Amino acid sequence: MKIIHILFHFTVFSFTVSYASINDFCVADLKAPNTPSGYACKPLASVTSDDFSFHGLVAANTNNSFKIGVATATVTNFPALNGLGISALRIDLDQDGLAPMHTHPDATELLSVVKGEITAGFLTPTSFYSKVLKSGDVFVFPQGMLHFAVNSGKGKATAFGAFSSENPTTHILDVLLFGNKLPSGLVSQTTLLDLAQVKKLKAKFGGSR
Amino acid sequence: MKIIHILFHFTVFSFTVSYASINDFCVADLKAPNTPSGYACKPLASVTSDDFSFHGLVAANTNNSFKIGVATATVTNFPALNGLGISALRIDLDQDGLAPMHTHPDATELLSVVKGEITAGFLTPTSFYSKVLKSGDVFVFPQGMLHFAVNSGKGKATAFGAFSSENPTTHILDVLLFGNKLPSGLVSQTTLLDLAQVKKLKAKFGGSR
Amino acid sequence: MKIIHILFHFTVFSFTVSYASINDFCVADLKAPNTPSGYACKPLASVTSDDFSFHGLVAANTNNSFKIGVATATVTNFPALNGLGISALRIDLDQDGLAPMHTHPDATELLSVVKGEITAGFLTPTSFYSKVLKSGDVFVFPQGMLHFAVNSGKGKATAFGAFSSENPTTHILDVLLFGNKLPSGLVSQTTLLDLAQVKKLKAKFGGSR
Amino acid sequence: MKIIHILFHFTVFSFTVSYASINDFCVADLKAPNTPSGYACKPLASVTSDDFSFHGLVAANTNNSFKIGVATATVTNFPALNGLGISALRIDLDQDGLAPMHTHPDATELLSVVKGEITAGFLTPTSFYSKVLKSGDVFVFPQGMLHFAVNSGKGKATAFGAFSSENPTTHILDVLLFGNKLPSGLVSQTTLLDLAQVKKLKAKFGGSR
Amino acid sequence: MKIIHILFHFTVFSFTVSYASINDFCVADLKAPNTPSGYACKPLASVTSDDFSFHGLVAANTNNSFKIGVATATVTNFPALNGLGISALRIDLDQDGLAPMHTHPDATELLSVVKGEITAGFLTPTSFYSKVLKSGDVFVFPQGMLHFAVNSGKGKATAFGAFSSENPTTHILDVLLFGNKLPSGLVSQTTLLDLAQVKKLKAKFGGSR
Amino acid sequence: MKIIHILFHFTVFSFTVSYASINDFCVADLKAPNTPSGYACKPLASVTSDDFSFHGLVAANTNNSFKIGVATATVTNFPALNGLGISALRIDLDQDGLAPMHTHPDATELLSVVKGEITAGFLTPTSFYSKVLKSGDVFVFPQGMLHFAVNSGKGKATAFGAFSSENPTTHILDVLLFGNKLPSGLVSQTTLLDLAQVKKLKAKFGGSR
Repeated sequence: MKIIHILFHFTVFSFTVSYASINDFCVADLKAPNTPSGYACKPLASVTSDDFSFHGLVAANTNNSFKIGVATATVTNFPALNGLGISALRIDLDQDGLAPMHTHPDATELLSVVKGEITAGFLTPTSFYSKVLKSGDVFVFPQGMLHFAVNSGKGKATAFGAFSSENPTTHILDVLLFGNKLPSGLVSQTTLLDLAQVKKLKAKFGGSR
Repeated sequence: MKIIHILFHFTVFSFTVSYASINDFCVADLKAPNTPSGYACKPLASVTSDDFSFHGLVAANTNNSFKIGVATATVTNFPALNGLGISALRIDLDQDGLAPMHTHPDATELLSVVKGEITAGFLTPTSFYSKVLKSGDVFVFPQGMLHFAVNSGKGKATAFGAFSSENPTTHILDVLLFGNKLPSGLVSQTTLLDLAQVKKLKAKFGGSR
Repeated sequence: MKIIHILFHFTVFSFTVSYASINDFCVADLKAPNTPSGYACKPLASVTSDDFSFHGLVAANTNNSFKIGVATATVTNFPALNGLGISALRIDLDQDGLAPMHTHPDATELLSVVKGEITAGFLTPTSFYSKVLKSGDVFVFPQGMLHFAVNSGKGKATAFGAFSSENPTTHILDVLLFGNKLPSGLVSQTTLLDLAQVKKLKAKFGGSR
Repeated sequence: MKIIHILFHFTVFSFTVSYASINDFCVADLKAPNTPSGYACKPLASVTSDDFSFHGLVAANTNNSFKIGVATATVTNFPALNGLGISALRIDLDQDGLAPMHTHPDATELLSVVKGEITAGFLTPTSFYSKVLKSGDVFVFPQGMLHFAVNSGKGKATAFGAFSSENPTTHILDVLLFGNKLPSGLVSQTTLLDLAQVKKLKAKFGGSR
Repeated sequence: MKIIHILFHFTVFSFTVSYASINDFCVADLKAPNTPSGYACKPLASVTSDDFSFHGLVAANTNNSFKIGVATATVTNFPALNGLGISALRIDLDQDGLAPMHTHPDATELLSVVKGEITAGFLTPTSFYSKVLKSGDVFVFPQGMLHFAVNSGKGKATAFGAFSSENPTTHILDVLLFGNKLPSGLVSQTTLLDLAQVKKLKAKFGGSR
Repeated sequence: MKIIHILFHFTVFSFTVSYASINDFCVADLKAPNTPSGYACKPLASVTSDDFSFHGLVAANTNNSFKIGVATATVTNFPALNGLGISALRIDLDQDGLAPMHTHPDATELLSVVKGEITAGFLTPTSFYSKVLKSGDVFVFPQGMLHFAVNSGKGKATAFGAFSSENPTTHILDVLLFGNKLPSGLVSQTTLLDLAQVKKLKAKFGGSR
């Protein structure tokens, strides 16, 4: 008898709950437009266990001039992160590899070194803060700071990290300054870099003359 | 001439900036009281590079009955995280080790497996979501969900993770229910667990009769 | 003359205002998908006075094994709450009735007793906080805490309450652990509950073996 | 043996937890200064069960010209609400009693009628929204809206309510306009109210000439 | 050789970035419905430089009974502000012009006087705060406060300002009280204004009897 | 009689209100430490009208190599802005003057041109957005974007602006890269700028070799 009552009770309850619990998480429907708070939620009925895991935070290809491999798990490839304010990354640096000066305008980054030696740092108007990190060390780059990471040891280096945003963006300084059509003269004028320097790097990063 | 003007300019500027830039980060003064938004900031003048790194996200002792080692880098041991909404953890599980059912009432958790095999999952009123994870896989436990992680492979397992809070708390279900002085009768009444079961676990977790 | 100018002025003004004032509130269009910040807004032109009131925060049926009746006014039945971060509830407990251990992962709950006597409490890793409440007393369950409420008096008890979210979810511990298909062995392993206890409650709460 | 290990484990664990769990709540130390996010937290060691309940959400004295009694449980008398974004109120209206036009600049208000009949409403630039409420009805006044509530029935009326802020303020229009030293001429000029009307109400609400 | 690698690298990178960078800004698609966090974002591919500038923060027509001209740049005419929490305004006051008592329920306002003399102030339950402002002076009206601004000098006055919301609303007290169909008796009852006064202003502001 | 009741009522009311209304604003006590949400509030009793106005948003000295004058009203010189999320600035550019490439890591900036012609723009990983602005035009630099402004007309130019933070910081690219002790080799390595270029600008901006 009691059991029937309980079941009835929870049947009624589940009805309410099935709507409400969509708020426990909001797996992104990436085909819907984004909003300032994130993507629209996929219907609860079509959410499965697979939505909550991401496959591929592995060593990425380092066959580029910075000798860096970056793998990320953010809302665009791991839609369950939508609205949760966090994402993951893995960085692999070959010997002499580095992450060039860049900012994440909308996220703090944590970096946990698991292999090798990495020198990480960030810049402020009055100082710079930098450390040599080894396995077991964590470094924090506060939101919006211009920062870098260099493999300062021998052999490869690997770090796991996280961003305080599910949809962080990466602004590499050289790409910003030299990878687009902003006239070289204007770049030079607003950075005080020599015009020849600007043109040399524009050639490298694909920006127009 | 120009240079002097520039220097003068930036001297004036730095004055303003030295106050303002304290907002770029707010390293916690842990001796000051906490507030709903975090601890008071350490004076900028006493902030050094050492503040932005934490030493010790290494394999923690697994010599306990859950065969789990947990190392965390949160605002209480890494004060630079104050106000930044993120923290880091490392979990090591011996063979047959596990993280028992628990919640983080104020943080989403990301878990990136780097070694071994971990079965992770969380529970909702209408379902449960669970996956077998291997190296390179990431799992997300949305904020406040009751969840677990079990070493489901052979040998040890290791994962790096992050919380979407600089000061997450961990509420292990058994500790909540059986580790304090809440009368066994009340625990039984409000969980429907048998009284004998409650007393058995109270004995194990140190709760009063 | 003056009046005409005024009217013209406010005609022009109203044009701007009619768009802008949709921000004063955002009545949910529940047929549109949810987002991390809530539902899309119903067009202002179709909002009426009826949208801002909800009918039915009355004594709910207590004919279930917990002898509890719960009525709620949340965004799913009271769409005007969308984006406003608050919702209402009413709890009725028959004699010996109770709200079993549960959490609201995304909301603080306030409970104001208006009739009878209720013993309310919540659990933390280091303590439990509990009070016997009578008419005129208010209790707060901070966000995400495992909590309970028991009719500890004679006769019925009633309380009005509120959540700090317009779309709170309720995670009843027994439903989470025993109402789904999570294998009994895994429940036992991650809670340290005896397997027999798990199976007994799974039978009661409808979970698979 | 196992038990000893467990205890050791949780002793170590509790150490971490005892610091961290201050974040689960932040009971206000009202003697410390306020900040934009609330008061500093009382030390965890001095928090007791008494902190989480408030005594006195009862019928307040209605012996005033509006025939209204208002009781509130906000952070200033219920410090556990600090940082939790919610507070409670009870309104009692004698026959013909009313809550005059007012705003809460920083909080949405929910009102649940439990006795009698109340006509509640709020004003926007393009419309007004108003309803006659009876027992079981809930009304929402979105944040910052100018609103009122009138006992429109026979006999007394009572409502329980909540604010979406732990520290709401109440700005009664008459008190704002007529209860201070703002010169009558300036009040008249900026409201278009007749000067005689302004002076009449200034006399009533204690404002200077 | 190196250059080719770099280009390859940034091609791969750009792919990721092109999705991610939609988070750097979210230009509103005003034809899509609003949400509590703002409008849906226009696709990145159709965003151009024109989206980030607004034309028309010029002296507005002051040919109305308040002798005020207001120009605003908010999300409804400047969609790039969507989600950014800021908007701009320009106020022009003829001699004897004024901004009558009003509130912005959801925004703080900053006012920078560039020409003439303006007396600005706001009201609280216990005081009023007011200043005579000249060119170079800035005044702040905290969110939700009832406030006013009067041209207290000779000749015209101009001020530039900003709101802490991209979609602020303006609630002019006279429009709220006298510009709609709320019965005059109810206005009088809830404001203590004389009925004749109410009817007189209703006639002026277009409200029904 | 009535009046006495009213006064009594409001005396009682004011008592409550006098505490509560501190939440309407929180004028900073700049001598107290900062927190992640801002400074502690000055006691309400010592707040005066003077707190809500700032004197000095005037043309600043442009006698420097960038020919720019910047005046700001932020929480550090205008403490009433504490917690309100907004601040003001005025920029004056002599002919050929400019604001060099910089970011505000924690604030969106709005710029309203009132005199002359200014070319403003910002950079993203995939594009740049730039406009020629004249009197009456507004431009928005979303939070954290690298941006610039150049006097592109004849004669002086002036703009008023606002930040979506009461405590914005300004990170001038040249100051970050060349104004501190970060070794020239490391700057060159992480920016791909030629070492000679780095040393040349270090000499100009006062950085160590």
